[in-house]
Amino acid sequence: MPTIFPGAQSAIPASRSRGAYAKSAARKAQIVEVATTVFTANGYTGGSFREIADQIGVSLTSLVHHFPHKIELLEAVLTRANEIYGITFDEICREHGLRAAVLDLAKGNLGHPELLRLLAVLSAECSRPHHPGHPWFAERYANIRSDHVRWIIQDQGLGRIPKNHDPIVLADLIIAIWDGLQLQWLIDPHQDMLGKMASFFDSIGMLGP
Amino acid sequence: MPTIFPGAQSAIPASRSRGAYAKSAARKAQIVEVATTVFTANGYTGGSFREIADQIGVSLTSLVHHFPHKIELLEAVLTRANEIYGITFDEICREHGLRAAVLDLAKGNLGHPELLRLLAVLSAECSRPHHPGHPWFAERYANIRSDHVRWIIQDQGLGRIPKNHDPIVLADLIIAIWDGLQLQWLIDPHQDMLGKMASFFDSIGMLGP
Repeated sequence: MPTIFPGAQSAIPASRSRGAYAKSAARKAQIVEVATTVFTANGYTGGSFREIADQIGVSLTSLVHHFPHKIELLEAVLTRANEIYGITFDEICREHGLRAAVLDLAKGNLGHPELLRLLAVLSAECSRPHHPGHPWFAERYANIRSDHVRWIIQDQGLGRIPKNHDPIVLADLIIAIWDGLQLQWLIDPHQDMLGKMASFFDSIGMLGP
Repeated sequence: MPTIFPGAQSAIPASRSRGAYAKSAARKAQIVEVATTVFTANGYTGGSFREIADQIGVSLTSLVHHFPHKIELLEAVLTRANEIYGITFDEICREHGLRAAVLDLAKGNLGHPELLRLLAVLSAECSRPHHPGHPWFAERYANIRSDHVRWIIQDQGLGRIPKNHDPIVLADLIIAIWDGLQLQWLIDPHQDMLGKMASFFDSIGMLGP
């Protein structure tokens, strides 16, 4: 599962003093951190504002002040999940191709099992058509697909991927294998996720450095 | 995601009258049905006995009488999810090979999005090492893997799958693609899950009838 998220920016009121802003930003970061744990354990629907407020030791009012709607908190949680990795994906794609970038990012993901679990839980839960998190995940998968398609076309031009593969189908297969192998690895950390991913690339003639 | 579940049997007290047993069985079935909806919406941790009891209109005591531990209710929910499909998987594998059986079962799954969502939510949630549902999913994936390995070896012997594929690695890749493509389809039902799965089989030289 790649980690290129659509961003979610929060506006900073210009009238606030620097100190007040720093304090508010720190509180916000703390809320996002605790919400990450609560959403991973209980899902988005099951993870309540009350539980998050209780764990931090603040009032519900304080929490709602920072995040008036629960979906905004979800977006902040997912955006943070992205920032933790850092994005070198595109850079590696450009220089060494998609295979190298996928294996590099998947390797980095091994250090963040809780964030992967969060994404696995939420993507499944938010797959419901009228779930408030649905648009976010639909956009996420559409973005990841189009990024992959772009790099596959580049790699086909450079002879790294055989031209008989349909770029859209191959993109979806790579994303599916990534999600699926990560789930298997989350359930049983002895699974060799990277080795199996490399085997897939080998079997379809997708070359790396 | 295949749907061959390890079974969960419930003992029937011999002393009960037929009428009382039938009534108890009907109540049990009703609890399992409502729990399926609640677990799909809120996950296992977030789906409470209280909510399930409230939705049915019975007391918490009545619910605990039928399912003394929450994990037993989860097992009943998952076992039911399996029974709904009916198991022709092994039969098709024997006659027409793994490719045909996977495509047949995946096609059948298209009629049960809510059950697929349930499994996707719970497998991710239960992937946590100390989650009460973890052993069930670890066993489920181990069973599915060994079933697939067995059929891959059969198909390699019959010339349906090239012998250069390691059966264990190929089994895990098929399961991963299945889980991953189903998730993409749950998020966006316009996705052609079956076509992409067939493309994967084509690309690795895995033949069907």
